[in-house]
Formats: sequence, C-alpha cells, structure tokens
Amino acid sequence: MAYNELYQYSVVSALMEGLGETGLPYKDLVSHGNHGLGTFRRMAGEMICLDNEVYQMKSDGSIVTIDSSAGTDVAPFAMVTQFQPSVTTSFAFDDKQGFSDALSALFPKSKNRYLAFRVDGLFQSVAVRTADGQRFPHEKLRELHKRQTTYEFTNVRGSLIGFRSPEFLQGVSVAGDHLHFISDERDRGGHVLDCKSAGDVQVSASILSNIHLELPDDNDYNEAELTLDSDGIRVVEG
Amino acid sequence: MAYNELYQYSVVSALMEGLGETGLPYKDLVSHGNHGLGTFRRMAGEMICLDNEVYQMKSDGSIVTIDSSAGTDVAPFAMVTQFQPSVTTSFAFDDKQGFSDALSALFPKSKNRYLAFRVDGLFQSVAVRTADGQRFPHEKLRELHKRQTTYEFTNVRGSLIGFRSPEFLQGVSVAGDHLHFISDERDRGGHVLDCKSAGDVQVSASILSNIHLELPDDNDYNEAELTLDSDGIRVVEG
Repeated sequence: MAYNELYQYSVVSALMEGLGETGLPYKDLVSHGNHGLGTFRRMAGEMICLDNEVYQMKSDGSIVTIDSSAGTDVAPFAMVTQFQPSVTTSFAFDDKQGFSDALSALFPKSKNRYLAFRVDGLFQSVAVRTADGQRFPHEKLRELHKRQTTYEFTNVRGSLIGFRSPEFLQGVSVAGDHLHFISDERDRGGHVLDCKSAGDVQVSASILSNIHLELPDDNDYNEAELTLDSDGIRVVEG
Repeated sequence: MAYNELYQYSVVSALMEGLGETGLPYKDLVSHGNHGLGTFRRMAGEMICLDNEVYQMKSDGSIVTIDSSAGTDVAPFAMVTQFQPSVTTSFAFDDKQGFSDALSALFPKSKNRYLAFRVDGLFQSVAVRTADGQRFPHEKLRELHKRQTTYEFTNVRGSLIGFRSPEFLQGVSVAGDHLHFISDERDRGGHVLDCKSAGDVQVSASILSNIHLELPDDNDYNEAELTLDSDGIRVVEG
C-alpha cells in the first residue's frame, strides 16, 4: 500500500459484539502497514505495530513478539498504515486530553478524516489497560471490559502509536483518539487510558484520507447483528 | 483495482450536507471501476456507469455521455467497482422490494457486506427521479429533493446498476439497495424509485468485501459538521 493509506480489518461494532474467533492472518496484516494497533484472537491482549514488529501485550503484563511470517493465528480487528509523518515536532502534555488538543492544533482541518500519529520519549506516567481475553465465544467487549487489567507505569521511555478517527465513523472505527503504548524495553504496554509526558516528547503525525476497509467473510461476521453502541465504545475504548 | 472491490469517493452524509462544489475528477473515477453510480457537481442529475461509459441523466430528461478523458469536471460522490459477477441468473419481480427480496435469497449471508448488481432486460415500468441541481452552494439534499423531477417509463428495455450497502454503514453509503436505470437507447434514466420487470430479466451480482473509501480534501468537506440523518437519507435516496 501507498504511504498513509489506512488499512482496517473488520469494524469496531463487530468487536463489540464479541466476534473474536476469526480474523486476518498476521502475514497479511504486516503486508498492509508498519504502524498500527488491534487485538488478537479472543481479544487476548492489545496489539501494537511499530518499527516493523507486532507485539502482543497481555493482561498478565507479559509482552510477546509476534512471528508474523510463521503464525497461523489471526487478528479479529486491526488498523495499520505505512506511516510517513507529514509533521514531526515536539511538545509536552499533562494528560491524554492535552495531547489530543495539541494534535488538533497541528491539524486544524482534519476532523472528517483520519490521523495516524506516534509519540516517542520519556513519560512521567502512562496508565494502560489490557484486555483479558474472551472466556467463551461471542463474549461481548462490554463484559470483557469489566475484568480488564490496568497498570500505571511511571518514568518510562517508550512509544505511543495511535489513530484519530472521525466522529461520524464511530462504530466503524473508534471515534476520536485511540492509542496503544509500548516501552522502549518492550516490557510494558497496553491500551492507553491516560498519559503525561516528562517534558517535550517527539510527536509525528499525518492525515489519512484513503481508507481500505476489509469486511470479514466468515459465518460469525455474516450472521452478526451489527448495531452502533456509541456509549459502549466510549466505555470500552475510551 | 482488483475485481469486485468497491471504490467510494466521499460519504453520503457529506452529500446530505450539500457538499457539491468539489469532488473527484472523472478520469480518476473511471480508473477505479466500470460499474457504478453517483452524482455530479452541484448534484446536477444522476450518474450511471456501465459498459465503460459514464452518463449524466439530467432533470430535463436529457442524457449526456461524459468524456471522462477530457472533462475537468468532478463528481462530489460516486461508488464504482470493476464488476465481475459471481452469480448470473434470471427472475421476474413486481416491484423494487420484490427485486430486493430475490437478491437477498441469492446472497443469504451478505447483510454485513456490500453487493454490486446489474439487471438487464425488458421492464414493464421503471419510475425514476432526477435531481435538479443545487440553486446555491451547500443547498442540502433534503431541499433539492422537494423539487426533483420524476418520470415513469413503460415497456422499456435497459439496465439497472446498483449497490446494496450494510445497515450499519448508513451515512457512509446508502443502507440497503440504491440503483440507477438507463435505457438501452440511452435516452431515458434516473435514480430508481420503483421498477417492475416484464417477465424474467437477467440479474448478475457479486459480494464486495473490500472497500476503498476516499475522503475528500477540500475546505467544504474539512469544515462540514457531518452527522447521521438516517431519516433524511431514506427520504432522499429511498
């Protein structure tokens, strides 16, 4: 794929419905991009893709490097891009909202398109959660959410990888900012609930206008009743 | 593009908001597919793409063949595919709902994906409307709709070109079946309100799972407040 085109497999509404048994083979996933996030079969942990690696951040705190060439396993949901930032700068922020506000100021005319972004540096704190995985097929994300594991890391050097999605595409993607974190040591990470930089950190970002949405072709997906649960998505992915 | 991938420029919610000044150049449009529908600058008529031609069906009843190589004009919204039917059959139907029901029976597991379809043959009746065009920039589709021109053709030989879009993508596309008609003589056509075949007609169709959504990059789009007006879309595009 060309730079800064978004490839997305499945839709968030399908994930909310608990469709976690089938998905995109890892080798296909990495062919579409080197920057991204997603989840794993049965929502076992949080996916982050950066620097040509895919990591599985599990609820027990462990992190596994995925062998995308050999794996027969799949991602039920993923967003990736061949990232080429159009803007690279640095700034500090006190919380996730502060980061979002600063990003909005960098891209004042982007609300109806996507953004891909990356933040590298030292963080005073990063609060994350990791999904525990489904206990039975079709267990809904709202249920999983109730037993998510949360961690708070302090004085940690690492990277945030994320996407901003337009409000009107809530349910296809996660409207607003959705970001995952991994430490430079690749020993800590997860879905970011909040974050505070330790002074200026490097921020690179680009607008994405071309979206490749691949809809699953399996019985679970084809039979699902997909409805928009905006409140649920905000609770689970906020 | 590969066969049966959907290329869509802009989203229906942007069209509802009256964003009709800018869009996709025709030469880009035809590079993405040979089967499709859409609209023209300032919503001047209905677009239908088939057999490697693009036609503009105007509200005065005239039909213009678009010179896609020379034109500097643009389409504010379009959906096209390189159509390769996976099913070709024939059946009769008494109305648009009858056609939709028969199509659903052909593709029982497609509700969460797109369908492209084409119907060729003799029709006892085809009722169409054609949009009159915006009288001022940003005039909303609901306003245009109030002065649309309707025609009913009887005993007419021609083609229906259309797409079925998933319910959960209402606002991105038009949920349900959206079809345009053009006569074999290329002298009558429009957005189909209802249709009744004269006996069996040829129906060809395919599921589309890969969607390429290109979001506009212009001031009108970037500044628009895009919200989902499901009722409005049903009124205007039903």
